[in-house]
Amino acid sequence: MAKITPRTLSGFMELLPAQQQQMRRFMGTLRQTYSLYGFTPLDTPLMESAEVLLAKGGGETEKQIYRFQKGDSDLALRFDLTVPLAKYVALHAGELSFPFRRYQIGKVYRGERAQRGRFREFYQADIDIIGDGKLDIANEAEIPSVIYTTFIRLGLERFQIRVNNRKILNGFYELLGLQEQAGDIMRTVDKLEKIGPEKVKTILTEDVGISGESADEILKFIAISGSNAEVLAALEGYRGKNERFDQGLDELATVTKYLAAFGVPETHFAVDLTIARGLDYYTGTVYETVMLDHPEIGSICSGGRYDNLAEYYTDRQLPGVGISIGVTRLFYVLQEQGMLNDNLITAPCEVLIVPMTDDLTVAAETAMFLRGCEIRTQIYTEKKKMKQKMAYADKLGIPWVAFLGEDEIAAGKITMKNMTSGEQQLVSQVEAANLVLEDLRIRNNGKLIK
Amino acid sequence: MAKITPRTLSGFMELLPAQQQQMRRFMGTLRQTYSLYGFTPLDTPLMESAEVLLAKGGGETEKQIYRFQKGDSDLALRFDLTVPLAKYVALHAGELSFPFRRYQIGKVYRGERAQRGRFREFYQADIDIIGDGKLDIANEAEIPSVIYTTFIRLGLERFQIRVNNRKILNGFYELLGLQEQAGDIMRTVDKLEKIGPEKVKTILTEDVGISGESADEILKFIAISGSNAEVLAALEGYRGKNERFDQGLDELATVTKYLAAFGVPETHFAVDLTIARGLDYYTGTVYETVMLDHPEIGSICSGGRYDNLAEYYTDRQLPGVGISIGVTRLFYVLQEQGMLNDNLITAPCEVLIVPMTDDLTVAAETAMFLRGCEIRTQIYTEKKKMKQKMAYADKLGIPWVAFLGEDEIAAGKITMKNMTSGEQQLVSQVEAANLVLEDLRIRNNGKLIK
Repeated sequence: MAKITPRTLSGFMELLPAQQQQMRRFMGTLRQTYSLYGFTPLDTPLMESAEVLLAKGGGETEKQIYRFQKGDSDLALRFDLTVPLAKYVALHAGELSFPFRRYQIGKVYRGERAQRGRFREFYQADIDIIGDGKLDIANEAEIPSVIYTTFIRLGLERFQIRVNNRKILNGFYELLGLQEQAGDIMRTVDKLEKIGPEKVKTILTEDVGISGESADEILKFIAISGSNAEVLAALEGYRGKNERFDQGLDELATVTKYLAAFGVPETHFAVDLTIARGLDYYTGTVYETVMLDHPEIGSICSGGRYDNLAEYYTDRQLPGVGISIGVTRLFYVLQEQGMLNDNLITAPCEVLIVPMTDDLTVAAETAMFLRGCEIRTQIYTEKKKMKQKMAYADKLGIPWVAFLGEDEIAAGKITMKNMTSGEQQLVSQVEAANLVLEDLRIRNNGKLIK
Repeated sequence: MAKITPRTLSGFMELLPAQQQQMRRFMGTLRQTYSLYGFTPLDTPLMESAEVLLAKGGGETEKQIYRFQKGDSDLALRFDLTVPLAKYVALHAGELSFPFRRYQIGKVYRGERAQRGRFREFYQADIDIIGDGKLDIANEAEIPSVIYTTFIRLGLERFQIRVNNRKILNGFYELLGLQEQAGDIMRTVDKLEKIGPEKVKTILTEDVGISGESADEILKFIAISGSNAEVLAALEGYRGKNERFDQGLDELATVTKYLAAFGVPETHFAVDLTIARGLDYYTGTVYETVMLDHPEIGSICSGGRYDNLAEYYTDRQLPGVGISIGVTRLFYVLQEQGMLNDNLITAPCEVLIVPMTDDLTVAAETAMFLRGCEIRTQIYTEKKKMKQKMAYADKLGIPWVAFLGEDEIAAGKITMKNMTSGEQQLVSQVEAANLVLEDLRIRNNGKLIK
């Protein structure tokens, strides 16, 4: 029979079992942490009517989207989790309670040019808090706590949450009479870390077309740095000149004020006036998160406050604040950088029972006993040489092998082999379970990121 | 601004938050149970090259599939989890250890005519054990145990696993010289419960074209019933006439023999000679599972043994055994039948902190303390009347409300209100956490299905 060559599409991540176990742990930590903050899980279709998905229309999105016909229907795969959320909230608003806190971890699709570390199918992990009409600034103040707890629970330590407020930026540019150019200025200033202040000034004066004096004002403003208290104090110097600026500064002060109460140490948080976030719908606090040892990766968790989630679907004013983690890309980077903790068990089971009699009754009973203790257990059933059976356990990294021969069965015992130490001992079922559970408690104590 | 009407595609399930929590519990139980048996989680792309996905080709599949072009690529969405598994194993065989046990819970797509209870996007939850060249019958014997444990852990009690062996059927039809008509006969016999023996005989003689004598032999054979021991004894009467039949009978006897050791009570298992499973690739044991109080729903968990998983991709012989649960449809049915346990908490959090001061420092600290105890906690931050705040907790079914007013803060205490009993008490943070954890231990003790 002619064979079709099996292959996976380029830009689509497909993990081997051990890596998949790490990915599961990654996503499990995200779910667990998001849940602790009162976010409820959502799951929306991967496919929507193209008209609904492209309500906002235009731009890169439309080029990258997977769009197709089926019968009379014009369909498309979601390219983010925000648009489906907007649709969901607009559609079900009458049945939801506000503020509505949801998390969603799901695949999204973008037909980008495939390149190393870029994916066409990838997981995003989003949280959003949606208000009905209004949403208190306290919600914006809580977001850094979610980010901090998430990465600490994953095991990442050297990271920093960087925060700014769009009202401060917009107010400041209004102050200089540059509200028209604010978008271009922010996009330029965003490159400061990459290209340096000289080049920023050149672009601002030559391309954006603002005066050298204004460019200097801007560079001086965005150069404000120091501790959070120092930055806030410097910003106070601009107070009283523009209402929007003052409001933004109040909001930023509030976000900063509650950091300690929300468990975020000053070391992991910085007010950073260069951050604007490209998306034009952010209107208040904006967030980025950088790995201090890998700034080249860019932000690993970003988001912000927006005033109107679902304006394309409803007149109802639905302000919100949210952040997103690009799970697939971050997992890829952690793997590439060798940052995943290899001590955690990635085997399909904790105990491999190796029966040494033809009758499997006792092996089956033993497996069921261990499973009843929530120990993942497999019986090796194939007729192979002992060496091959041990190689199977070894290759998969199974931590314990349980031998059941005639002697063991006659004595009502099990020979348990610790595959790490090589040690063997003859024990009862209960003792075997305790051995394994104690070992797992220690081995699974570590975090995903080392 | 002109609005786009928000809508969800017909045939696509989109759950409200409380239902989604139940669905999460459902899938969590499946994952947990499958893991206990040593199945490792897999996650493959939802999209594949159409050539790969349709390697087998033909039939209903091709009509229902979502297939489209993107650039030069001919793409399609997966319509089951078996074909992607076959591709995965063929592609990665060199890096896998056999027997390879994997589970996968994922969405699949079939553009069927939409009707009530039928879905175009739905979750399947599959397990498969793949051997390299051979796979021992003991694996087939373990499958009923997985099915039994899964449904018991979900809370379903009145169900029966029905098992047959295709070799017994094929051997029996060979015995009657009807191997050519075996497929047609099995499809007819499959309808026995629906249309009765008279009509089955009519179809067999008139449409399939076999003699009345043979039809009577077949009806006599499939009427064999009773306890597992009785059925096996009756089948022994046919032994020695056909090699394939004898092999099937040995296999069925082995599967039955280990039931008790694998923890499956006789009440929940029946050898049923009418079961054949439509799919032509099953070659040994076949499984169905029926809800005893809802036989009209059909099988809620089916599968079987097959000899060659990936013949379209590789010459390597990869026999396997697997089962599948149609999660979305089963969840829909359980919901329709009012079988989901409403006592389980579906709220986004266990504690809603209601601050009664402008400053939120203590509220934030309290939330972080409770979260540190793994208690899902939300602070109600909006400026609303107390009545509205309580209505929020009530509507969402949040079990505890924590009041923090000036008196509480001054005393370093919290007023905890049990929303079920209405009882309020002034307690310390630690006492509050213990109150909630003890309550949750009791309330979450129940199972998803009542």
